[in-house]
Amino acid sequence: MSVSVDDVGRLVPTISAELVSELRDAVGAHAVYVERVKVDEFKDAYWIPGDETYAASAVVQPATTEEVQAIVRIVNLHGVPLWPHSQGRNLGHGGPSPRVRGSIQLGFQRMNRVLEIDEELAYAVVEPGVTWQDLHDEVAARGLDLLTPCPDLGWGSIIGNSMDNGHTYQHYGADYMMPTGFEVVLPDGELLRTGQGAIPGSTSWHTYKRSLGPSLDPLFVQSNLGIVTRMGVWLKRRPPAYAPVTLVVDDDGDLEAAIDTIRELRLAGHLEGVPAVYSTLRAAHMIRDNPVPPGPAPFTPDELKRIGAETGMGAWAVRTAAWGDTELVAYKLRQIEAAWLAIPSGRFEVPRVYEASEYDGLTGSAAQIGIGIPTLKALESTPPNIAHVDVSPVVPLRGSEVRIVVEELRRQFAAARMNFGTGIMVTGERSAVVIAGIRYDKTDEAVARAAFELGRRIVLALGRLGYGDGRPHLEFMDLAAEQHSFNDHAYRRFVERIKDAIDPNGVLSPGRHGIWPSAYRGAPDAETPSDGII
Amino acid sequence: MSVSVDDVGRLVPTISAELVSELRDAVGAHAVYVERVKVDEFKDAYWIPGDETYAASAVVQPATTEEVQAIVRIVNLHGVPLWPHSQGRNLGHGGPSPRVRGSIQLGFQRMNRVLEIDEELAYAVVEPGVTWQDLHDEVAARGLDLLTPCPDLGWGSIIGNSMDNGHTYQHYGADYMMPTGFEVVLPDGELLRTGQGAIPGSTSWHTYKRSLGPSLDPLFVQSNLGIVTRMGVWLKRRPPAYAPVTLVVDDDGDLEAAIDTIRELRLAGHLEGVPAVYSTLRAAHMIRDNPVPPGPAPFTPDELKRIGAETGMGAWAVRTAAWGDTELVAYKLRQIEAAWLAIPSGRFEVPRVYEASEYDGLTGSAAQIGIGIPTLKALESTPPNIAHVDVSPVVPLRGSEVRIVVEELRRQFAAARMNFGTGIMVTGERSAVVIAGIRYDKTDEAVARAAFELGRRIVLALGRLGYGDGRPHLEFMDLAAEQHSFNDHAYRRFVERIKDAIDPNGVLSPGRHGIWPSAYRGAPDAETPSDGII
Repeated sequence: MSVSVDDVGRLVPTISAELVSELRDAVGAHAVYVERVKVDEFKDAYWIPGDETYAASAVVQPATTEEVQAIVRIVNLHGVPLWPHSQGRNLGHGGPSPRVRGSIQLGFQRMNRVLEIDEELAYAVVEPGVTWQDLHDEVAARGLDLLTPCPDLGWGSIIGNSMDNGHTYQHYGADYMMPTGFEVVLPDGELLRTGQGAIPGSTSWHTYKRSLGPSLDPLFVQSNLGIVTRMGVWLKRRPPAYAPVTLVVDDDGDLEAAIDTIRELRLAGHLEGVPAVYSTLRAAHMIRDNPVPPGPAPFTPDELKRIGAETGMGAWAVRTAAWGDTELVAYKLRQIEAAWLAIPSGRFEVPRVYEASEYDGLTGSAAQIGIGIPTLKALESTPPNIAHVDVSPVVPLRGSEVRIVVEELRRQFAAARMNFGTGIMVTGERSAVVIAGIRYDKTDEAVARAAFELGRRIVLALGRLGYGDGRPHLEFMDLAAEQHSFNDHAYRRFVERIKDAIDPNGVLSPGRHGIWPSAYRGAPDAETPSDGII
Repeated sequence: MSVSVDDVGRLVPTISAELVSELRDAVGAHAVYVERVKVDEFKDAYWIPGDETYAASAVVQPATTEEVQAIVRIVNLHGVPLWPHSQGRNLGHGGPSPRVRGSIQLGFQRMNRVLEIDEELAYAVVEPGVTWQDLHDEVAARGLDLLTPCPDLGWGSIIGNSMDNGHTYQHYGADYMMPTGFEVVLPDGELLRTGQGAIPGSTSWHTYKRSLGPSLDPLFVQSNLGIVTRMGVWLKRRPPAYAPVTLVVDDDGDLEAAIDTIRELRLAGHLEGVPAVYSTLRAAHMIRDNPVPPGPAPFTPDELKRIGAETGMGAWAVRTAAWGDTELVAYKLRQIEAAWLAIPSGRFEVPRVYEASEYDGLTGSAAQIGIGIPTLKALESTPPNIAHVDVSPVVPLRGSEVRIVVEELRRQFAAARMNFGTGIMVTGERSAVVIAGIRYDKTDEAVARAAFELGRRIVLALGRLGYGDGRPHLEFMDLAAEQHSFNDHAYRRFVERIKDAIDPNGVLSPGRHGIWPSAYRGAPDAETPSDGII
């Protein structure tokens, strides 16, 4: 790589004409972009304006697994880092941008086939470019009686989201249940199939989570050890009955009781999937599709109370659902209601129980997401200049610990004079991810910088309390990894040994989540290899 | 290592006096055994009599993680392989015996502390020597309202079973749900904590399954990449109501319908945990605690039909359960009954619904296991000369595919003139493990050899059909791994690269599940390193 001056006078990374030519030979000229204006289309739309820290040198879009293998072999010969993305959304975490400036972006937009849907066993197999919306539409087009999962925004890639430890809200959203059985292009271009996929002709590949010997799927998640080009996705049958559920506590003092109640309902099976507990402002946006316009200064506690009353979202509101047949849904709703109304300021809101013929007519993102209908409403209801950066500490599902984290977040937001907002994702029966969603005007460089500075302070403060960021933005990856320091970073040193063994040239996603190949580890600036390639 | 002649004239592997002395310095003389009679206590009780293929040279029993680290460092200096076991049960898979003759056995019988029980978050943390019975008793002694899991025999180690991909029958028995958060001694003696455990002071270690970066827990299961010395175990609250359930089909022709019905009940959440579907003879043993004495020759189909009628176990019988409050259990039983009675020869048997105060008084292994009360009944009801060796093919949970595997097993058993028997473990919503349980008289060398020969033929025949053995016996590990041959054994070659990077001396469990360190791979006999150490 080298650096050149672009049309508007910026110093931008570029790759050699020889490398461009080899990539074009491999995937076709139409699938390799080096023109700055085109490469910039693959920038993180939420990053600080004018800051080129995460600028890429080129974009390449393979159409087949064989082309992915060819690309990997080419970048190995040239020693240029490669950073894959799927659809490249990943908003709040760095989008498709690479950790190392000048990397080539590998985009999977052209590998977007639904390879298989097994209705009987209720799973699908997808390529990395397949979005939640794509899979939903394919299931609908085939008339299959399956519920497809989704996160808040339906335009993202299923594999991309999974590889970044994103969550979904339906049955398999928790505990790494959804993704099962990978095909992986290794950093040297070799092709690997995980689990039962290693057996030629296996029909169990996407039905069972284990290998004979060490199981590898989770090793390729949030990872720079391979590129997942095919993945199984577990689906559920569409239930005959479904009720979207909103649970509110009006008093902030009831947060502990709310969290503990959710845990007990979750452990008992009365709540499933990933309930989301939103603070007032976030709840108005994510449950009501009606965000509150910010004031000239952060809202005071009294103003927040008033907003909670006016929106009906109280201090905290939970977006969740009940699935089953009509009898089971009625049973679950009675359990949920009884438990929730035992909380002093608890309120319980269920519009009604729907039957399957009504699902497609549902409106409102909360009702739609609960039954797996992808939507873009959370984005459409956001002003175009507003971006966000997320910090995602993992916390045990215990009211007293969630309280510690929430109060630390509040202190940090207040010190930065920003409105506090969080969505507490109940990622299982024992854990939650308390997402600090820092919202800022992305058109104002100083404001954007302040937002990232707040994020950095939160990662550090929570790390000191023992809570780690589970999905850090590019900008916080090293800092977040730094918190995982047990035994002189035994975890990182172990993964580095694997990295060096399987990616000796260090070309695949150097620096992803704090794992750097050996060439970069000795460098004075961790972002460039010690031999000064860039 | 060298070989010497023991008291009865056998050639047995021995280790040097210097190595013995170093081990004794590390853990105390009382915890190192080299006398043949004592080492033989740690032999696989089910192996072929008089065959020393898997004989160990010594046994060492550490009491702390630090002692485990010291042992690992010592064996590295001497280049002698180390093979850990926990309680060393592992019946049907090779017990505690090492793959490589002459290995030192590391036994965890002295590391048997329950380190933590968190009643609120419903998990425990255990050392490798803790048995299912130990954890159950500890929960009972503390008066905690938690249901502890168990497999068929309660004397085994929780960690040991988990590390061998054993299953349990309760809520977290499927899909790798139970074990969460490991402490691992690496092959060089370093100490690693997985997941959130890498954060000093983390309280999330055993509550959340993911790391920042690649997640490692599954990499250490069925593995020779590290020794797990501490593990989280997810528990459930004891339900207020519980019903053991037996489902029978009298006609073998209804097996497909039975499997498909179980899948639908499992997908709908009406069945949970790991239902076990037993063939006639196995059902009499595992559900009724009343094994049928074998005849002079394998039973004919007509005799099996008669036995099915006399025992009430029909052609196939399912051991499962319903958990919840009385209303939910009644609801589930109605769903299960309606679905099962739609099968032409289906019968549904529920003695009654019990409440919590009655659980401790339950008798019969089926009723006890369903509510997590460990038992040894399956062993106690087995004649002392009868052993078994298991082959465990992974099969999609689809009636037509389970049929293919069952018929292949029947052909193989018939050709070997042995009674066919299987337990089909429903290990999730989409998969099953169809365990071929080969039973033989372990006191008769020729009969035992024939049993292992049958096992070998089954591994090979099922591999050709695309079904892999998920938990092979020592004797079949290489053959089972051989079936996972996609892309010139890309899986094995990938794991070998990790193995060589983190265990350069190849001391930890060489050959476990077909993964050999580099020193052994070039050897003419794969069981000895190419430098001829043994």
